[in-house]
Amino acid sequence: MTENRQSPGRLANAAARPFELNLYLDGRRNQINRALDLYFPSPADAPEIKAAMSYSLKAGGKRLRPILCMAAAEAVGGNPEDTLPAGCAIEMIHTYSLIHDDLPAMDNDSLRRGLPTCHVAFSEATAILAGDALLTCAFHLIARHALQQPLANQRPWLEVIQILAHAVGCEGMIEGQMQDIRSQGLNLSASMLEQLHRLKTGALISASVQTGAFLAEASPFQRDTLKRYAENIGLAFQVTDDILNIEGDPLKMGKAVGTDAALHKNTFPSLIGLEASKSLSQALIVQALQALNTFDSKADPLRAIAQYVVNRRR
Amino acid sequence: MTENRQSPGRLANAAARPFELNLYLDGRRNQINRALDLYFPSPADAPEIKAAMSYSLKAGGKRLRPILCMAAAEAVGGNPEDTLPAGCAIEMIHTYSLIHDDLPAMDNDSLRRGLPTCHVAFSEATAILAGDALLTCAFHLIARHALQQPLANQRPWLEVIQILAHAVGCEGMIEGQMQDIRSQGLNLSASMLEQLHRLKTGALISASVQTGAFLAEASPFQRDTLKRYAENIGLAFQVTDDILNIEGDPLKMGKAVGTDAALHKNTFPSLIGLEASKSLSQALIVQALQALNTFDSKADPLRAIAQYVVNRRR
Repeated sequence: MTENRQSPGRLANAAARPFELNLYLDGRRNQINRALDLYFPSPADAPEIKAAMSYSLKAGGKRLRPILCMAAAEAVGGNPEDTLPAGCAIEMIHTYSLIHDDLPAMDNDSLRRGLPTCHVAFSEATAILAGDALLTCAFHLIARHALQQPLANQRPWLEVIQILAHAVGCEGMIEGQMQDIRSQGLNLSASMLEQLHRLKTGALISASVQTGAFLAEASPFQRDTLKRYAENIGLAFQVTDDILNIEGDPLKMGKAVGTDAALHKNTFPSLIGLEASKSLSQALIVQALQALNTFDSKADPLRAIAQYVVNRRR
Repeated sequence: MTENRQSPGRLANAAARPFELNLYLDGRRNQINRALDLYFPSPADAPEIKAAMSYSLKAGGKRLRPILCMAAAEAVGGNPEDTLPAGCAIEMIHTYSLIHDDLPAMDNDSLRRGLPTCHVAFSEATAILAGDALLTCAFHLIARHALQQPLANQRPWLEVIQILAHAVGCEGMIEGQMQDIRSQGLNLSASMLEQLHRLKTGALISASVQTGAFLAEASPFQRDTLKRYAENIGLAFQVTDDILNIEGDPLKMGKAVGTDAALHKNTFPSLIGLEASKSLSQALIVQALQALNTFDSKADPLRAIAQYVVNRRR
């Protein structure tokens, strides 16, 4: 794939006019959705499990993680489209984690993005298997894509599998979810809550940025600074989620608000207060932007996404 | 790793004395258990989720799949120890599938190998996550191992990821489990039951043999015949499982018998009768052995395992 001259990516380099984030996000989302269609296994075989996988995968996600993956590649001068197989795998992994998190034995959520959750729309058994299948499919698509590349270009994809599997495994996202379950009914400290979310939400967001940077052959210095960027926006994302659960518009969010307080969940607003949480999320974004100081205008998408993470309404 | 002269593998070449299967299985099992200890992530981080993963991984499994992987490599003249990373990944995937199959929303089993199932010993949420983590860990360990190899030796490991992910994904093992759930309370035909088990049990058994053969650089002809061998023993394994659920000794099996009939499950004995099921399993083993006709004594372990699959008591 070559960079389309009309693609939104080009806007980042058009210093004469301000960066139009919505246009950028829409363009990238369309690319990612088309790629997901391409990489999703044909529904001819095993239609039932694929219907459940597809239902959750196409339930209107923001595609934030694959967009971050593309924007990170762009920031270091790479071709963002080259990261699409990784971005699609990341979105499948993200979707699997949502399906399993929503299960009755976990968070027991019945609504997500304005739609019944997978186990409500299908069945609990189907939802467990659909999650399992999306996780498996993610690694399958990366391996398949890698094997289609010339031998010299295969190693980076093994690295991507390693980065992603580590980020979402028992020392990353899954441990974050364990800590979340274990902490229900307990009073956490703010630093414990931060640690929980650095794993539960932050690890995959950070891996998305790292993957994009890695595939675009970022220098070790660039990778380090992008990691700092990612860690800050990852935590800011969760703080904002907590704030939206108090102040958000249920119609825009596609789910109920006020549920955290009703369930006495540990959230940043419940531990440090609403105003302090807003200050925290802004401070994290300032740090994320500072990490990008040495980058030129090619990092404008990453800069705009950082603002979006805390200013979003859903 | 080099082949130890005292290792049980050598017995296969000792034409003067009969092949001692139990010695072979014990030796291989010890090697696999040591390798699992090596590849299992250090429990220092995230001890709780790792305790659940380890509980099920070390609950006395037969290690049949990694043994098949090693024996297949051996049959084509490869070094069986070289397949250990794949075998360990396969055993982790197998264990994840058992943990999820046992969940209340699936088969709702409370006993496995004489021990409480993972969700009984820990919690349902922990069991879901432990399964997820084992699946993720399997791909992680293969990628990590591959990246430690010289560049020229990395491609086969990408192929292994592809083979395994395909075998246990939405067109393989997971679809088999979906068919199993969907068929509860329905009367299947024998051919539908066979198709179900070719996916649910057969796909991973077949992938284990294929992986071993592939890593040992088997010729296309050898891979084809080993595939035929694997498909036959995979189905024979399930038919035998059904027979043991009627005739087995609950003490030896570590689980209750008679449960299939009580739950009105579709089994080979319920569809074609007990005696016909025994004949079927023997016929499948004859076909498996015929597939090995062109192999020399290096395939003796595979031959003995085929007999073991139908003659086992647990």
